[in-house]
Amino acid sequence: MATEEGFIRGRLLVTCLDRPGLIAAVSNFLFNRGANIVTLDQYAEKPGQGMFFMRLEFDLPDSEGPLQRLEPAFQEVAERFQMRWQLTEASRRKRLGVFVSKEDHCLKELLWQCQTGEIPADIAVVISNHAVAEEAVRQFGIPFYHVPVTAENKAQAEDRALEIVSQVGVDVLVLARYMQILSPRMLGPWRNRIINIHHSFLPAFVGPNPYRQAFERGVKLIGATAHYVTEELDQGPIIEQDVRRIDHRHHVEDLRRLGRHLERMVLARAVRWHVEDRVVVHQNRTVVFP
Amino acid sequence: MATEEGFIRGRLLVTCLDRPGLIAAVSNFLFNRGANIVTLDQYAEKPGQGMFFMRLEFDLPDSEGPLQRLEPAFQEVAERFQMRWQLTEASRRKRLGVFVSKEDHCLKELLWQCQTGEIPADIAVVISNHAVAEEAVRQFGIPFYHVPVTAENKAQAEDRALEIVSQVGVDVLVLARYMQILSPRMLGPWRNRIINIHHSFLPAFVGPNPYRQAFERGVKLIGATAHYVTEELDQGPIIEQDVRRIDHRHHVEDLRRLGRHLERMVLARAVRWHVEDRVVVHQNRTVVFP
Amino acid sequence: MATEEGFIRGRLLVTCLDRPGLIAAVSNFLFNRGANIVTLDQYAEKPGQGMFFMRLEFDLPDSEGPLQRLEPAFQEVAERFQMRWQLTEASRRKRLGVFVSKEDHCLKELLWQCQTGEIPADIAVVISNHAVAEEAVRQFGIPFYHVPVTAENKAQAEDRALEIVSQVGVDVLVLARYMQILSPRMLGPWRNRIINIHHSFLPAFVGPNPYRQAFERGVKLIGATAHYVTEELDQGPIIEQDVRRIDHRHHVEDLRRLGRHLERMVLARAVRWHVEDRVVVHQNRTVVFP
Amino acid sequence: MATEEGFIRGRLLVTCLDRPGLIAAVSNFLFNRGANIVTLDQYAEKPGQGMFFMRLEFDLPDSEGPLQRLEPAFQEVAERFQMRWQLTEASRRKRLGVFVSKEDHCLKELLWQCQTGEIPADIAVVISNHAVAEEAVRQFGIPFYHVPVTAENKAQAEDRALEIVSQVGVDVLVLARYMQILSPRMLGPWRNRIINIHHSFLPAFVGPNPYRQAFERGVKLIGATAHYVTEELDQGPIIEQDVRRIDHRHHVEDLRRLGRHLERMVLARAVRWHVEDRVVVHQNRTVVFP
Repeated sequence: MATEEGFIRGRLLVTCLDRPGLIAAVSNFLFNRGANIVTLDQYAEKPGQGMFFMRLEFDLPDSEGPLQRLEPAFQEVAERFQMRWQLTEASRRKRLGVFVSKEDHCLKELLWQCQTGEIPADIAVVISNHAVAEEAVRQFGIPFYHVPVTAENKAQAEDRALEIVSQVGVDVLVLARYMQILSPRMLGPWRNRIINIHHSFLPAFVGPNPYRQAFERGVKLIGATAHYVTEELDQGPIIEQDVRRIDHRHHVEDLRRLGRHLERMVLARAVRWHVEDRVVVHQNRTVVFP
Repeated sequence: MATEEGFIRGRLLVTCLDRPGLIAAVSNFLFNRGANIVTLDQYAEKPGQGMFFMRLEFDLPDSEGPLQRLEPAFQEVAERFQMRWQLTEASRRKRLGVFVSKEDHCLKELLWQCQTGEIPADIAVVISNHAVAEEAVRQFGIPFYHVPVTAENKAQAEDRALEIVSQVGVDVLVLARYMQILSPRMLGPWRNRIINIHHSFLPAFVGPNPYRQAFERGVKLIGATAHYVTEELDQGPIIEQDVRRIDHRHHVEDLRRLGRHLERMVLARAVRWHVEDRVVVHQNRTVVFP
Repeated sequence: MATEEGFIRGRLLVTCLDRPGLIAAVSNFLFNRGANIVTLDQYAEKPGQGMFFMRLEFDLPDSEGPLQRLEPAFQEVAERFQMRWQLTEASRRKRLGVFVSKEDHCLKELLWQCQTGEIPADIAVVISNHAVAEEAVRQFGIPFYHVPVTAENKAQAEDRALEIVSQVGVDVLVLARYMQILSPRMLGPWRNRIINIHHSFLPAFVGPNPYRQAFERGVKLIGATAHYVTEELDQGPIIEQDVRRIDHRHHVEDLRRLGRHLERMVLARAVRWHVEDRVVVHQNRTVVFP
Repeated sequence: MATEEGFIRGRLLVTCLDRPGLIAAVSNFLFNRGANIVTLDQYAEKPGQGMFFMRLEFDLPDSEGPLQRLEPAFQEVAERFQMRWQLTEASRRKRLGVFVSKEDHCLKELLWQCQTGEIPADIAVVISNHAVAEEAVRQFGIPFYHVPVTAENKAQAEDRALEIVSQVGVDVLVLARYMQILSPRMLGPWRNRIINIHHSFLPAFVGPNPYRQAFERGVKLIGATAHYVTEELDQGPIIEQDVRRIDHRHHVEDLRRLGRHLERMVLARAVRWHVEDRVVVHQNRTVVFP
């Protein structure tokens, strides 16, 4: 939905305990600054008692901008309700750091959707423990770094990756079929900002080789799951999942082939939602505002 | 989501032209009466210019009730923004008048879901131009009227049906595979309150025998559509649609059988959304708040 | 697909090691008896090496019948290829013994679909450890037995159930949300003939309370699984699965409600496929001929 | 499914009137040449009366090859049953001629899937009435021809396209969002070999701008349809269709964006099935063997 001329589109995410007056307070705040609310989504776990989540998009007259000028005044509202909150400018495209190993279908989908604007973000850099994706990435004019990982150099390789990421400036890390487990020290500063695609319908088939596990269990649907990375493997908050039907004729190889489409679609949706500030994490679950 | 003790759950539907301050005005109004907003869904066609639609559920302290006491005060807010609005009490179950012909699968799904509470409504009466469904209906303790329709008695039959409906008191008419076309004079008083199930993915296969048409066209999916009835056959605002995959082995008979599941699910969802005040009609399209 | 007059519709299921000449041998056998093959589905795991599975429907002239007269002659073909095989008459409706506890939505779907013929089978008896479903079952003219189960009387209760089942004569046992675990001695004689519905997308959320587990893990789809019962809880061969999308607004109660539709559809499909002899079990996986 | 060493994988498609002995005759023929049937799919419209369709894959010992050596002998079988038939070698990849206009998402999906082998075919040439796709195509090492089309030069442009197609040698034409209507004289020689993607769930929304039509009708699902091109616009035999859910928040632009995913998936599936000889056309409907 296009922003009108003379306006800045802002996004506000709010999390706090539910109580009467929350929506009135926030909408008054915006109205008093001449802003028009474009979309408002909210969710109250348990009215009057549990958590309250809200996402707003609003158009602020240029004369009231830039957006940061709202922050000190909003801080007062926020304190009254003890809100966790975040204010972003919709037109500022987030920068992705993409990690990939040998299989490049998810990477390609991201390259493509960022180029066409379906994902409103820029891929700032691609880092891989293999060299295979290099040419495809360079064709898009995006820097590519080959950072091999072995049992011995794992720590140095992670340091190198973090150094690159910090040099180019990145908002989100996307593991687009990156077959290395990140060490916990990488997770801290990136909490809820590393998105992984797992090639199963989690929590079924955790760990490596989920398609083989799916084949052996004889399931009738295969799935893919995009989630934030946490210390526990494949246990982080789920952002998006999808499945497709298979049958007895599909061998492990067929599941891999069919699953590739699922994986790229599910990951692309999760990344789009994240960069549009639609995802709020609360206690290992996500609220995704549509 | 259960209402807390000591509270009344209200629902407010609002339609008007979008402009700044709408959400602030409504949320202030509720806050000032001690109400807590439980869910708020809104949709602005084109921010600052087009139509604005909003649905709220809120918990009002018993001491402020009953709900109607809010109406005069809210009327002032409404006038300021030239709102079309509607205020209902969530706990007041709507009453359905169900019309059916020979095929009773949609009727049975409604009987069932109203009984289990999945559709929070009561079937007040079932009217049919055939007698086949009588026993099934009576088992649920619901009045059944057999009102045969012929080319000659069509007008009288409609009069009779309207008379029954008005005697038992009904909020919504549901055509659960009722194979008669209602005459325009029936539609006026019931605008946007008659829900029909059509056994195709509209606008494909308008009119009778959509499964035969689907078979002959060789489509790979069949569908069902729940819509409000208007003067033009099968052209009213669509509330819900769904499809399922078929293949070359499915003859017309198979499509009928498979379609029955679609029809009952699609109709049941549409009826549930209607009785929960989730559907707003605007220019032959519906806004359905989830 | 209707059988022509003057013919008997037969079904043949064959499992053996794959080798050249299998289809020729079986189709010659049938052709030489004047039979016309109506459908033939086969699946070779790994051509020339692995297992071979085949399902045929054929129309045999009445003059060649009854079907059993084919058996001795076919046994010769079968021995040549070391086939496991089964020959059934399509018009002979299988008899179901349905077990249910308190939740009756799956039972009702079966009652309904058996009545309309969508599932071409007869419910011979319903056995429950609770009395709640009694009236609904009797309305269909089907015998209902209330066999309470306690920690103390579990063995006797199973004896009683088996006795009933053997008296009325049953081909398949269907656990339509029967919240008791069958003891292993019941499984032997009924191997691959007891169908259970589990209210999750197995292998995720084994055991009791899968909807709570699903809610807590924050999945974005819930599922249901119909499978044959084996000694290991929820580990038997999967016949059918399906899922539906949920989101953060759905509490455990909503998952239960939404899941009921999945459960009844998935179980009904699995039962239909079983009674139409479409399911072959091989090493904890099923081949389902469509 | 890989062919074993020492064997040629053949595919046989057969269409004729159903009568007893068909499968026996074909399977005997193959068995007598040492072939092992890998998959057999058949479909009888109406057993003993209507049409019969069959697709076989079989492994023929190299010593019996090449495949064409079977043709004269099979012709005898075929004549006995008045079959229309076709015998192809699975390893011979078909050559695609792809037509595209400005929107290149379907083209890209084909380039990609042909490269990874998901579609076992080669893109022999890309022809476009615009120059935009040129670079993307050349990166894959595939010849690209820019053949502008105007009201005046339409006939010459088609001649030029046909000349190119005939020079490079092509088995199938794929209209991957080619916004020109082919003139009837192009269709004759390519009957059932031109695949088009239409951006609606046909027969709904024939003609240009289906997403606008879908928006205006207020449908709750959008679709895409892959079909063979015939003289009547958007009326040819349907190969594949799919849909996805939308809601009131989706404007025409959103439908276009969401539809692109559908279009590329649906077209890619249809092309894969065609090049694997899975599609048989009969009276404006398709039989698609899975």
